[in-house]
Amino acid sequence: MSDSWLPTLRTATPEEGFQLAIKLSRIGVKMTQPSAEVRERLRPEYAESADSLIASSQVIALNFQTVAQANDFWRS
Amino acid sequence: MSDSWLPTLRTATPEEGFQLAIKLSRIGVKMTQPSAEVRERLRPEYAESADSLIASSQVIALNFQTVAQANDFWRS
Amino acid sequence: MSDSWLPTLRTATPEEGFQLAIKLSRIGVKMTQPSAEVRERLRPEYAESADSLIASSQVIALNFQTVAQANDFWRS
Amino acid sequence: MSDSWLPTLRTATPEEGFQLAIKLSRIGVKMTQPSAEVRERLRPEYAESADSLIASSQVIALNFQTVAQANDFWRS
Amino acid sequence: MSDSWLPTLRTATPEEGFQLAIKLSRIGVKMTQPSAEVRERLRPEYAESADSLIASSQVIALNFQTVAQANDFWRS
Amino acid sequence: MSDSWLPTLRTATPEEGFQLAIKLSRIGVKMTQPSAEVRERLRPEYAESADSLIASSQVIALNFQTVAQANDFWRS
Repeated sequence: MSDSWLPTLRTATPEEGFQLAIKLSRIGVKMTQPSAEVRERLRPEYAESADSLIASSQVIALNFQTVAQANDFWRS
Repeated sequence: MSDSWLPTLRTATPEEGFQLAIKLSRIGVKMTQPSAEVRERLRPEYAESADSLIASSQVIALNFQTVAQANDFWRS
Repeated sequence: MSDSWLPTLRTATPEEGFQLAIKLSRIGVKMTQPSAEVRERLRPEYAESADSLIASSQVIALNFQTVAQANDFWRS
Repeated sequence: MSDSWLPTLRTATPEEGFQLAIKLSRIGVKMTQPSAEVRERLRPEYAESADSLIASSQVIALNFQTVAQANDFWRS
Repeated sequence: MSDSWLPTLRTATPEEGFQLAIKLSRIGVKMTQPSAEVRERLRPEYAESADSLIASSQVIALNFQTVAQANDFWRS
Repeated sequence: MSDSWLPTLRTATPEEGFQLAIKLSRIGVKMTQPSAEVRERLRPEYAESADSLIASSQVIALNFQTVAQANDFWRS
C-alpha cells in the first residue's frame, strides 16, 4: 500500500476534490517552509489579512482546477 | 440525498455558474480562516480597497473558468 | 426570454468576447462590493495606479481566456 | 470589411501572436482607464518598476496562452 | 544518457510530479538570480513571510498543473 | 529563412522549452520597457527581492505551460 501523501488526484466528490486542493496548497507552503513552528507563528499574519486570505483562495482555486480536470469535473 | 456544500460543479446556466465560482472563492477564504467574526471584521479592509476587490475578482474568474469547463461552457 | 445578466458565454465576435470578459471582471467586483457609491469612490484609487490597471487587465485576460474557449476561439 | 480592433485571434506566426497578446493586455488597461493622458502620465510609474514590468509580462503571458491555443500553437 | 536537468515531464506518481513542480519553480528563480549566495541570503525574506510563502505555493500550483496535464493526471 | 525572434513554439526537449519560456517572459518585459539601460538599472531591484524573484518564476511557469502544451508535453 502506498504511504505517499499524494497517491492519486482522484476523489469521489467535488467536495473531496476541494479538500485535496487545500492540501496541495498547504503542502506547497510546507515544502517551502518545513518548520511547523515558523508556519504556526506566521498564522496571524495571513489569517488576519484580507489580501493574504484572498491570495490563499487563489492558490486553492488553481489547485482545484487541476484536481477538477483530473476527475473530468466529476461528470460521471 | 447529499448534504455536501459542493455536490456537483454542474449548473443550469452561466449565471448560476458564476454564483458557484463566487461560493468556491469564499469557501477558499473560509477554509483558511474559519472564524466568521474575523472574516466579518476584515470586510472593510477588502471591500473598501480597489486592489483587494480586483484580486477577489481574479479568484472568481479562475473558479469561473473551472466551472465553465465543467459545464462545457453551457454550449448545449 | 431570459433576463439573466449572463444568459450565455457565446458572442458573435472576439471583440464582443472581450467586452463580455470586461463585464465578468466588473461583476466579480460588484458581487464583492455591491455598493455603487463605494465602487465609484474607489475609482481614482485604481484608475490612477499603474499596478491596479495591470491587475485589472490580468482579470480581463483570465475571463477572456474562458470566453474564448467557450467560443472555440471564434474559429468557425 | 470589419473595422473591429479584434476581428480575429488568428495570426500567421507566433511572433504576431505575441504582438496580439501585448495589444490585448494594453486594451485591457485602456478599457479600464480610457484617458490616454492619464495612461501616459502613469508610464514612469510602471516602466521604471521591476515588479510592475514583471506583472505586465504576466498579463502578456496569459493573453499569449489564449492566442496560442486559438492558433493551435501554430503547429500546422 | 541525457544530463539535462529536465529530460522529461513524465513522473511515476503525483507526488513525484509535485516534487518536479517545486523543482521547476526553484529553477525559475535560479535562472533569474543565478547567485546561490544571494538566493540563500534572501531565504529569511520569503521563508518568514506569509505572503511570500503563499506566492511560492501559487507558482508550485501552476507548475503542478502543467506536470499533471503532461502525465494525463496519472489516470492510467 | 525567418529572422523572427519567435519562429516557432516547438522545442526538441523540455529543457529547451523552459529556456523559451524564460525568453518569452523577458521579451514581455522588453516590449513594455524597450530601454536596455533602464532594465539593467532595475536588475538589483528584482534580482535581490524574494517576492520579485517568485513573481518572475510565476511568469516563467505560465509561459512554460503554454510551450509545454504547444509541444504536447514532449510525450512523443
